Amino acid sequence: MHFLDKLQASSQVRNSRVCVGLDPDPEKLPAVVRQKHGNGLSAVKAFLVDIIQATAGSAACYKPNLAFFESFGGQGWETLREIVRTIPRGIPAILDAKRGDIGNTAQAYARSLFEWFAADAVTVNPYMGTDSLLPFLGYQERGVFVLCLTSNPGAADFQLLKTEGGIPLYIHVARKIDVWKRTNQNVGLVAGATRPEMITSIREAAPDCPLLIPGVGAQGGDLAAAVKTARGRGDAPFVINASRSILYAGSGPDYAEQSAAACSRMAREIEQVV
Amino acid sequence: MHFLDKLQASSQVRNSRVCVGLDPDPEKLPAVVRQKHGNGLSAVKAFLVDIIQATAGSAACYKPNLAFFESFGGQGWETLREIVRTIPRGIPAILDAKRGDIGNTAQAYARSLFEWFAADAVTVNPYMGTDSLLPFLGYQERGVFVLCLTSNPGAADFQLLKTEGGIPLYIHVARKIDVWKRTNQNVGLVAGATRPEMITSIREAAPDCPLLIPGVGAQGGDLAAAVKTARGRGDAPFVINASRSILYAGSGPDYAEQSAAACSRMAREIEQVV
Repeated sequence: MHFLDKLQASSQVRNSRVCVGLDPDPEKLPAVVRQKHGNGLSAVKAFLVDIIQATAGSAACYKPNLAFFESFGGQGWETLREIVRTIPRGIPAILDAKRGDIGNTAQAYARSLFEWFAADAVTVNPYMGTDSLLPFLGYQERGVFVLCLTSNPGAADFQLLKTEGGIPLYIHVARKIDVWKRTNQNVGLVAGATRPEMITSIREAAPDCPLLIPGVGAQGGDLAAAVKTARGRGDAPFVINASRSILYAGSGPDYAEQSAAACSRMAREIEQVV
Repeated sequence: MHFLDKLQASSQVRNSRVCVGLDPDPEKLPAVVRQKHGNGLSAVKAFLVDIIQATAGSAACYKPNLAFFESFGGQGWETLREIVRTIPRGIPAILDAKRGDIGNTAQAYARSLFEWFAADAVTVNPYMGTDSLLPFLGYQERGVFVLCLTSNPGAADFQLLKTEGGIPLYIHVARKIDVWKRTNQNVGLVAGATRPEMITSIREAAPDCPLLIPGVGAQGGDLAAAVKTARGRGDAPFVINASRSILYAGSGPDYAEQSAAACSRMAREIEQVV
């Protein structure tokens, strides 16, 4: 099943466009988890298993970020694979890896993410250009979200630079991806929510492109504004990511219920705007 | 010891500016290695241990690329850590990871690379800007090579785009890094050798910046031209990476000797130009 079909089905069944970001900072785990499992990888795993179970009814997809697992080394990788296997089959797992390297190396990264982890989709970095992305796009049933505009302050350093004709770099990336989309139905864009007017520009440059939108919640982006701009003509797929605001919604013994409530609430808020 | 001091010491002792790229493609391993160890990770490990032992007299540094290990999953990570530990203490290990993510995530990546792997230096991707690089630069004794101009065809897609004032994006990156270098002595640039005249422009933008130069050998860059342009005013540090042309110099039972000879020869060729 194609990633986009799987995402759409999951989204419709759950009436949700929420992507739950799994960025487990060991220092932020609820006290009850740390008391029972310590501060290490087994605590992270127990916590995420609970979060996934609690939110599976209202999460359109999950987006684990590799960095938080990699800080534990090889064992962190094994744990992430187990976490991916914990995610119910019908809910896509987008691995936030932001990889990018020359052709034969990108092929090895793609094999790692799509085969070893069995990711449904991944994020990649566009800086090295076409041949660094093609090996990922070659997995035609899997999704590939290319960084376009990110939600951090540093986005201004290079992504917003004006290129010839006054076109910012991120729009140049969006236009290029829009061209690639004609031959690669599996390509999408990462478009940060912290500057909603820029999502409008991205939608103009790539009207049908699936968008993965980080930056609401803890990062300060306005949810309603992001949804309105992301819809475009109304039929292009998008999901809105929240990590901290869902993962750490509660810090007491009912943390899983609090996460589930935060996820459902966000799903409803999005659908109200849609 | 600061990474740059360690690199300089290694370079002087060995009279070499060769960086040996460890990009082990299992399909390219010598027949004798595959016969003895199969096609998997143990063959990769045995091969790299031989290569490191054989080239340790003439390699200024080593640059393992994470992708080739990650294609084996978590066990690949464990093997890479063992490989890093195999590299003699006085020779820096530059982990080619090309990571880049928002602040707290970049911190987790930095911890993974500098602490779990104990890398002396890493490569990072600039697309997400300052806050994605600062956590790496915070490890002041370790080196951070920022992708500026890469050696692949896709470099033309975005890196060569003219920004306002007619300045290509890669030069904009080089200028920014040159500014950062005033407060972060540990920052360097990746400057691909396939377009030597562009290394000249990078040297003008960042006169004292350490350069890591890939793209000679199998990728077609001209070694002498790269060396001449990389020297700049003659005292800025640089190393020239070769992967396939050293790793696969021989395919017979004497593959390690052939690699050692290829590495020594390249070191001499560089010093002749210098």
